[in-house]
Amino acid sequence: MLNDRHFMGFVANTSINLGLAILAAILCAYIAPAAAGSGIPEVKAYLNGIDAHSILAPSTLFVKIFGSIFGVAAGFVVGKEGPMVHTGACIANLLGQGGSKKYHLTWRWLRYFKNDRDRRDLITCGAAAGVAGAFRAPVGGVLFALEEAASWWRSALLWRTFFTTAVVAVVLRGFIEFCRSGRCGLFGQGGLIMFDVNSAKNSYSSADLLAVIFLGVIGGIFGSFYNYLVDKVLRTYSIINERGPIFKVLLVAAVSLLTSCCSYGLPWLSHCIPCPSYLEADRCPTVGRSGNYKNFQCPAGHYNDLASLFLNTNDDAIRNLFSSGTSKEFHLSTLLVFFVAIYCLGIITYGIAVPSGLFIPVILAGASYGRLVGNLLGALSDLDTGLFALLGAASFLGGTMRMTVSLCVILLELTNNLLMLPLVMLVLLISKTVADSFNQGVYDQIVKLKGLPYLEAHAEPYMKNLVASDVVSGPLITFSGVEKVGNIMHALHLTRHNGFPVIDEPPLTPAPELCGLVLRSHLLVLLKGKKFTKQKTMAGSDIMRRFKAHDFAKAGSGKGVKLEDLDIKEEEMEMFVDLHPITNTSPYTVVETMSLAKAAVLFRQLALRHLCVVPKTPGRPPIVGILTRHDFMPEHVLGLYPHVVNRHK
Amino acid sequence: MLNDRHFMGFVANTSINLGLAILAAILCAYIAPAAAGSGIPEVKAYLNGIDAHSILAPSTLFVKIFGSIFGVAAGFVVGKEGPMVHTGACIANLLGQGGSKKYHLTWRWLRYFKNDRDRRDLITCGAAAGVAGAFRAPVGGVLFALEEAASWWRSALLWRTFFTTAVVAVVLRGFIEFCRSGRCGLFGQGGLIMFDVNSAKNSYSSADLLAVIFLGVIGGIFGSFYNYLVDKVLRTYSIINERGPIFKVLLVAAVSLLTSCCSYGLPWLSHCIPCPSYLEADRCPTVGRSGNYKNFQCPAGHYNDLASLFLNTNDDAIRNLFSSGTSKEFHLSTLLVFFVAIYCLGIITYGIAVPSGLFIPVILAGASYGRLVGNLLGALSDLDTGLFALLGAASFLGGTMRMTVSLCVILLELTNNLLMLPLVMLVLLISKTVADSFNQGVYDQIVKLKGLPYLEAHAEPYMKNLVASDVVSGPLITFSGVEKVGNIMHALHLTRHNGFPVIDEPPLTPAPELCGLVLRSHLLVLLKGKKFTKQKTMAGSDIMRRFKAHDFAKAGSGKGVKLEDLDIKEEEMEMFVDLHPITNTSPYTVVETMSLAKAAVLFRQLALRHLCVVPKTPGRPPIVGILTRHDFMPEHVLGLYPHVVNRHK
Repeated sequence: MLNDRHFMGFVANTSINLGLAILAAILCAYIAPAAAGSGIPEVKAYLNGIDAHSILAPSTLFVKIFGSIFGVAAGFVVGKEGPMVHTGACIANLLGQGGSKKYHLTWRWLRYFKNDRDRRDLITCGAAAGVAGAFRAPVGGVLFALEEAASWWRSALLWRTFFTTAVVAVVLRGFIEFCRSGRCGLFGQGGLIMFDVNSAKNSYSSADLLAVIFLGVIGGIFGSFYNYLVDKVLRTYSIINERGPIFKVLLVAAVSLLTSCCSYGLPWLSHCIPCPSYLEADRCPTVGRSGNYKNFQCPAGHYNDLASLFLNTNDDAIRNLFSSGTSKEFHLSTLLVFFVAIYCLGIITYGIAVPSGLFIPVILAGASYGRLVGNLLGALSDLDTGLFALLGAASFLGGTMRMTVSLCVILLELTNNLLMLPLVMLVLLISKTVADSFNQGVYDQIVKLKGLPYLEAHAEPYMKNLVASDVVSGPLITFSGVEKVGNIMHALHLTRHNGFPVIDEPPLTPAPELCGLVLRSHLLVLLKGKKFTKQKTMAGSDIMRRFKAHDFAKAGSGKGVKLEDLDIKEEEMEMFVDLHPITNTSPYTVVETMSLAKAAVLFRQLALRHLCVVPKTPGRPPIVGILTRHDFMPEHVLGLYPHVVNRHK
Repeated sequence: MLNDRHFMGFVANTSINLGLAILAAILCAYIAPAAAGSGIPEVKAYLNGIDAHSILAPSTLFVKIFGSIFGVAAGFVVGKEGPMVHTGACIANLLGQGGSKKYHLTWRWLRYFKNDRDRRDLITCGAAAGVAGAFRAPVGGVLFALEEAASWWRSALLWRTFFTTAVVAVVLRGFIEFCRSGRCGLFGQGGLIMFDVNSAKNSYSSADLLAVIFLGVIGGIFGSFYNYLVDKVLRTYSIINERGPIFKVLLVAAVSLLTSCCSYGLPWLSHCIPCPSYLEADRCPTVGRSGNYKNFQCPAGHYNDLASLFLNTNDDAIRNLFSSGTSKEFHLSTLLVFFVAIYCLGIITYGIAVPSGLFIPVILAGASYGRLVGNLLGALSDLDTGLFALLGAASFLGGTMRMTVSLCVILLELTNNLLMLPLVMLVLLISKTVADSFNQGVYDQIVKLKGLPYLEAHAEPYMKNLVASDVVSGPLITFSGVEKVGNIMHALHLTRHNGFPVIDEPPLTPAPELCGLVLRSHLLVLLKGKKFTKQKTMAGSDIMRRFKAHDFAKAGSGKGVKLEDLDIKEEEMEMFVDLHPITNTSPYTVVETMSLAKAAVLFRQLALRHLCVVPKTPGRPPIVGILTRHDFMPEHVLGLYPHVVNRHK
């Protein structure tokens, strides 16, 4: 009968998990595929200037929120932190594009954000708010946005993100205060500090330092190996996921079943342990939803240590692992089993069609690894095993994500243990250094895997051997200052370029000269306005009376005038339009003989989308070509000049 | 007889203070005038690209260290934090220029740092280490370097400063551990957290929030008024200080006498207070150097509260003000007197010829202000007066220094009170916002007052109405690709320019074209090498055999080949030298019609020293002029176009 009851429990547990998982997968696969995964790589890419439509769309926001709730509830080894960053960024984007026309949520005053820079600032603030909310770490949120998310940083942005996270902190604090009475379930628990680690013992010897260095080195290796495996698994999954939404759902179902089997099956491997004598009966075994000691299949007064980790919320499992003064609570074998299971489940779970953060799996694996090392080195070191768990989590985070200051502050705000700061810093530095010698950080790796043209902060060394004109590609399409409508339409149909040089020619000027750069989106607005002239004359002021400045404001991603929306008649095709009013007459330029490395630095530092290459010698057309983000990608450059790397050596 | 003893005490106190003060002033006035003041503005200016010789010289380092020790010991209301930042930067600079030849401290391997960027990175790390050491706040140090000190930031730099401060933290921790037994005086006290504020009460109501907002607003006003007064006092002192070193010493002596009178005289205004009954006899009145309760002139079992603040180290005074559960310890009148005295003394002390940090005076004034407000609002708010003191200090820091994240983390690391983080963030935001509406931050103000050409991160709005060629100044001196030595010598004598354009002319090229830019320092090295030719021929490879790359490495500030060192004979003057090997052939250029605002952004973002302005139309000389840092200064631009500001409105 006992076996029957446990089997019923297993069936109930598994089927509820499976149901929630399939729900999350359906949302994700059919409504917004962009909502799968962590979201941090996507936000990072967006802030680098990659304007992919679906990354921050309202549908992604909706699926991210509910998919994440269902995914976490389904018992997957996933976190809610990455999705919360993405959610914050999506909300910021919604505000930045003035609300959503599709869903009839628009505000007029938000039109002031309709430009690249302010929108980027808003989204950075959104990402910071996400971290601040997820970890209850306002300063950590600012630093995360600075170190990991943003590609460009200004002091004004520092101040804005700080303001955002301060508001988050005050609001969060209010909610926690309101919920302290237990009205909101587990939300009020833990207060502002999620995993309070207050250890009486704050001093450490040089033997402890050695132990910590060892922990950091091995943690770095495990972390980079984690990245390696995540990359492999993602490549495998992408083959499955490409075959259609139904395959995505099936993959999720399979992983959900595996997870349920592990979390319900593995605790049977563990033996029952009698409760510590100093604890009262109502604290061990635990009654209620959360707590250190889970009874599972054990008799009264005993607990199953593996069940205390598996059959708990992820937050509670971390809290158990971090708890101090409980070095005997978990068996060595329990920690080993839990570590291996979480490490593997974390890797195979990332990449399925469910919003899934990486922080929690990495912290869980790291904390169990740290506690394991702590138990093994117990004889050598005086440090508490809870502290070892904290340092282990730090080493894994450093090894996978490769952040330093932000992780340090987030861990500080998570655990409230300021005195361990030097050790946490040391571990992070060591594990990051070790892991950096193997591969890239996990988010950079995912950005690369998705094929997004991410612009690195530094120029590649081989770029010093090339000049700007070497990588200019394709036939250049230029417009005259006053251009025939038909030519413009032809060019817009023919190419997908987003910027075109405008050249003033005789008789307007004595010789052809570069007037500036015109954007596709502005051209479309201008053509839609149909302010054409029969003759080739400058009608600038006339045109500007027709338009207002905000007509040319940057529309929401995927919005704005489209080429198909234009309805130009045959006779209009032969008419002329004056491009001067919409031409940017101060485009950044480089001479064709400029070193490509220096051009790349210019492009990156000024956050450009187009860089004009002008000829060095007179008597030639006034522009040689336009460099865009794609022209600086290593794949493009090395495709053109495969031997340039060797030349450098 | 009692009066006699007190008078003797006064004389002893005053004369020791005066002696130490004069010692500090003599060091400062006669050896290194650059060591006076905080040093943070100078470091900030250096990191902005202002290469003033004396700022980071070894003599400055020496005076900064000892002057700061004597100054703090002399009882001035000055901090050691600013000087420690400057000290860190000086040490970093010494390493960056490969040691000091003058003092026979050189290391060969340090030559790898002999370039602008690595030296700048090193000095940023030095500044971070200074803050990390001064406040025992490693993360705060990183953020200070990021937010206040550095003008350019790269992720590699984040990682390097983090590494530096981690080492600082570990070393500091080691020293504290070693000194815990009391072998090093007061050093070991307080551990890693200087002002531990552990309050049992961590919740706050909306009434408390209102009180905190009020505190922030008034603190912001006081803070900006502090800046205003410091500016006025500095202008007054500069008149006195300019008259000679002896006047500097006299000024220091006067301020020292005033400070001694205040700190010894004012406590007489206060009444004796009986010790709290719950304290044991050996804790009140305090025996020994530091402690909450100073006996002064009071009978046994009583203490003088004003003396407990004045006749203590600054650190202990802050600790007393921050201490919780002691709301009755200080009288209202005591706090008022102390606040007014410290506020005024802080203002008149900054600017005298003594290394003097601003953090401690501002924290002291802010903490007494906060405690005062806390006592006044005691009936309305439940917050502890110690917390009010902390928030008051935050509001003053925000009001004077205008930092946000870094102050927040520094305060957190100083006080170990994570739960008050939302309130600290709120206060900092409010006081900074309020103060920003009145004037600039104190460090920016001092940089401006010193006349250093500090390059702001943003372009001024009126620059949009100008183009690059509008501000190009002076006659342009250009060199030919192969130039006569006499011409170069003449140009070097005639101007103080640091960069000269090199133009290739027929017959080398079909038409004159811009070859690149050559630096004065490289020219001097080249001329010293005397690789001249009789004919006007290119002898590039020949020249490069004569020199090694590190011959052209950037020498230490004030070092390197000087014009006077050159000994060119009459016949050599008629010979030619090939400039191609030392020409930077990829200088950044802008077209003359480029908006000045965009040129300024380019100049600032890429951290340039020279920006070439090229003509738009062909047939003219290939370069119009060179823009340097000075050409972008508002004074220069507005001097040329006084009405451009109005045009913008």
